Amino acid sequence: MPSFTAAALAETLHAALEGDPGVSVTNVAELDVARPGDLVIAGAPPYLKKLPDCQASAALVPASAPVPSPHPPALLRTDDVAAAFAAACALFAPPPPDLPSGVSPLASVSPDATLGDGVSVGPFAVVEPGAVLGPGTRLYPHTYVGHFARLGAGCLLYPFASVRERCVLGDRVILHNGAVVGSDGFGYNVNPDGSRTKIPQTGIVEIGDDTEIGANAAIDRARFGVTRLGKGCKIDNLVQIAHNCVLGDYTVMCAQSGLAGTTTLGSRVVCAGQSGFAGHIKVGDGAIVGAQAGVAKDLPGGQVYLGAPAVPRLDFAKSLAHTASIPLLKAQIKALSARLDALEKAAQT
Amino acid sequence: MPSFTAAALAETLHAALEGDPGVSVTNVAELDVARPGDLVIAGAPPYLKKLPDCQASAALVPASAPVPSPHPPALLRTDDVAAAFAAACALFAPPPPDLPSGVSPLASVSPDATLGDGVSVGPFAVVEPGAVLGPGTRLYPHTYVGHFARLGAGCLLYPFASVRERCVLGDRVILHNGAVVGSDGFGYNVNPDGSRTKIPQTGIVEIGDDTEIGANAAIDRARFGVTRLGKGCKIDNLVQIAHNCVLGDYTVMCAQSGLAGTTTLGSRVVCAGQSGFAGHIKVGDGAIVGAQAGVAKDLPGGQVYLGAPAVPRLDFAKSLAHTASIPLLKAQIKALSARLDALEKAAQT
Amino acid sequence: MPSFTAAALAETLHAALEGDPGVSVTNVAELDVARPGDLVIAGAPPYLKKLPDCQASAALVPASAPVPSPHPPALLRTDDVAAAFAAACALFAPPPPDLPSGVSPLASVSPDATLGDGVSVGPFAVVEPGAVLGPGTRLYPHTYVGHFARLGAGCLLYPFASVRERCVLGDRVILHNGAVVGSDGFGYNVNPDGSRTKIPQTGIVEIGDDTEIGANAAIDRARFGVTRLGKGCKIDNLVQIAHNCVLGDYTVMCAQSGLAGTTTLGSRVVCAGQSGFAGHIKVGDGAIVGAQAGVAKDLPGGQVYLGAPAVPRLDFAKSLAHTASIPLLKAQIKALSARLDALEKAAQT
Repeated sequence: MPSFTAAALAETLHAALEGDPGVSVTNVAELDVARPGDLVIAGAPPYLKKLPDCQASAALVPASAPVPSPHPPALLRTDDVAAAFAAACALFAPPPPDLPSGVSPLASVSPDATLGDGVSVGPFAVVEPGAVLGPGTRLYPHTYVGHFARLGAGCLLYPFASVRERCVLGDRVILHNGAVVGSDGFGYNVNPDGSRTKIPQTGIVEIGDDTEIGANAAIDRARFGVTRLGKGCKIDNLVQIAHNCVLGDYTVMCAQSGLAGTTTLGSRVVCAGQSGFAGHIKVGDGAIVGAQAGVAKDLPGGQVYLGAPAVPRLDFAKSLAHTASIPLLKAQIKALSARLDALEKAAQT
Repeated sequence: MPSFTAAALAETLHAALEGDPGVSVTNVAELDVARPGDLVIAGAPPYLKKLPDCQASAALVPASAPVPSPHPPALLRTDDVAAAFAAACALFAPPPPDLPSGVSPLASVSPDATLGDGVSVGPFAVVEPGAVLGPGTRLYPHTYVGHFARLGAGCLLYPFASVRERCVLGDRVILHNGAVVGSDGFGYNVNPDGSRTKIPQTGIVEIGDDTEIGANAAIDRARFGVTRLGKGCKIDNLVQIAHNCVLGDYTVMCAQSGLAGTTTLGSRVVCAGQSGFAGHIKVGDGAIVGAQAGVAKDLPGGQVYLGAPAVPRLDFAKSLAHTASIPLLKAQIKALSARLDALEKAAQT
Repeated sequence: MPSFTAAALAETLHAALEGDPGVSVTNVAELDVARPGDLVIAGAPPYLKKLPDCQASAALVPASAPVPSPHPPALLRTDDVAAAFAAACALFAPPPPDLPSGVSPLASVSPDATLGDGVSVGPFAVVEPGAVLGPGTRLYPHTYVGHFARLGAGCLLYPFASVRERCVLGDRVILHNGAVVGSDGFGYNVNPDGSRTKIPQTGIVEIGDDTEIGANAAIDRARFGVTRLGKGCKIDNLVQIAHNCVLGDYTVMCAQSGLAGTTTLGSRVVCAGQSGFAGHIKVGDGAIVGAQAGVAKDLPGGQVYLGAPAVPRLDFAKSLAHTASIPLLKAQIKALSARLDALEKAAQT
């Protein structure tokens, strides 16, 4: 385990030190479980409030935020606590596994594949004829790169990830364990007896640079043409992206969310966990769709949507308030009825 | 890339040509992105309306539908545009990957397995003792066929698909990447301290002819007896089918939908995306269950159900309308109260 | 297939025999599909009621419950029908696949890994440098144990299961096909242009003894520190557990449920199918969360919660009743209005 004095750590992280320069820091930890020797992050008031109860030896805090006492003996002040903490995590982290460079003798790489400089291909990886691996691309054991698939530079495929035939990954794309790129779209013609005839799914998937696909996520190839993910997209575990969908740059889909076919998400869209999207709809740039929301029609960008069917956040809140007001309505109706009773009785006399 | 004149393409697709017989067609494309050289499909008025803005060279249209002008130079008229278009897609598609016939020397096939004529077993595929592969069945690399599992003729298993011990696939069954057939059912006896003792899951899964299972879908084996899928079922990616479920013929489950244990779906049932079904319920033939719906009790067939808990479509629409009318009820109550105020004031004078 | 007389079966299962001691039992079956020769379980009145229509040869029934006639020729009475039936299932089940002990010559096991006595490592399994397999641990073909991962005694990994670097499994942990332990958490810093910078995910996953992880489930490693599952947890297929989550002992997550990051479930919590949990929340011991529920804030333990947002069961029922009463409110308002009309008309005369 590496060890730093608070002074050395502050210098490494480009932070200003306040407090004990000599206290020793040997790890990072979460605020709630930190022990002496740990560095924690407290980037906003709710976290700063926890510092008096925290046993950490050092805390990364905003450059000029007031910090309640008592607090860890060393405060490291910086304008970007998140970036500094990410750097600190990397400092204390064990190194990632060292994948041997070159092609394992236990891999099955077609002589008709093209391998860039510095690739790493692990045991039992399969690279089919016509496939291309860009320079520096690393294939863990048990990965599959299909016929004529093309991977850019610096890609990383974890075990059991697969890229089916002809699909294209940009540079630095990461596929986590079990991620599937290019499975057949779910397309059938329905026959009079209710049986279905498979429509050939002859298109591909194209994925932009720096996009990351989570464990056991599935991205279907296009019926024809392209299922396309922009650059810098972040796709979480167990996400479904159907055939012919299009995602703009920097769009995020959280775990277990799903798109039906031919749906388009703009750039910087965020789909929270377990949200679902009907087919053939368009969601504008920067839209944020809440957890478990159900999107059934086009949504303009730049807003937050909640509920199923998904509506703008304010409308959702109003709708909840309306439903919550039913007991009040009942009481009001009862009161009106009583007043009517009295009037009617008076009128009869 | 293949190239056809419109006349040749019309003949190949058994369509009637209207317009320029000589225009060259080199690909298929979606209406919205088509360029010169492309064939598009416009099988219904919403798509026909887009033809004036479409740059395609040819369009497949219904035999006698009016087509707005301008339109692509060649119209191909046919009674079944969907089937013709599927055929066209196949014409222009790159050929599917060519899996070598025979058993790869890098596969692990038990001498106690039985292999039909013309099977293809890729590198690192595993076929356990007692397993049977029907004639023409193809195993991509990285597939697993368990002990005494039986696969019919013409099955196709993509990388990382697995069939656990003793499970049975009919003919022409397709398992996409990562699909699991025969994982243990989720069955436990609860002990007084809250711990759970695993109930042996000793049954199997049986899958009918022409059924297709999507990427990373999971189908659990029966506690005992059989988890059964009929013929021609289409199961999308990331679907969960629990132990002892039964699906009739031609039933469809869209992505991320799930069945709890011992639930029965009839024939030609359609479960839309992310829909969920409680255990021990029965859904009748031809029922259609909407996206994200939650089915908690038996549903008769032949109807559309929406919502959670799922109700017939009309009831769901009524319920939505009721909820939407709350602001109106509030206004009505306010108006009644004002009228009462006036009457009460008049009565006092 | 084994065969028992009812008398022999009763003795083996420690049950009291009532009826024909000589009838032959050759299998177990579900009540609805049982045939002569089968043993069924009828542990509660709804099942006991089905016995007159059941063709089974024997039934396991509670020690002193009244049993309607006619019933199967042999009744086996016992205090714990569930345990007795599980034992019966095991009696009649085919033996589980026999995994050869030792390391397959087709596996790739690092010389720097440590293997306990009696391990079984199948073809194409990969055990990376520094990994530890406890005694009796069995790896099916196509499993992956990452660098410095540690598996306890008697673990069982099915094909395509993976344990990423440095993660830790207790004893007797089962990973079903495609289960992923230790994929990167979904953590990014957002840049001004909307792009996201990956936060290194340097923590691990620790899983307690006797915990079972379903097919294609995904459990992310901690950002730093530990994503922790207690002992005896049962995690179903396609479940998502995000980085830094903590699950107490004996907690159950049913299929397709999911936790966002840093959420804590107590002990003996039950999350029904497709339920979802926001990040950074705490759910108390013994809480039961219904199917498709959406949990957005801390929930005290020991109660049942339903709906999205999830509320205590009674509140959920009240809320449903309120919504269902809207048509009545409309009628009441109409009636009040008519009474007002009459009063107003009378006042005018």
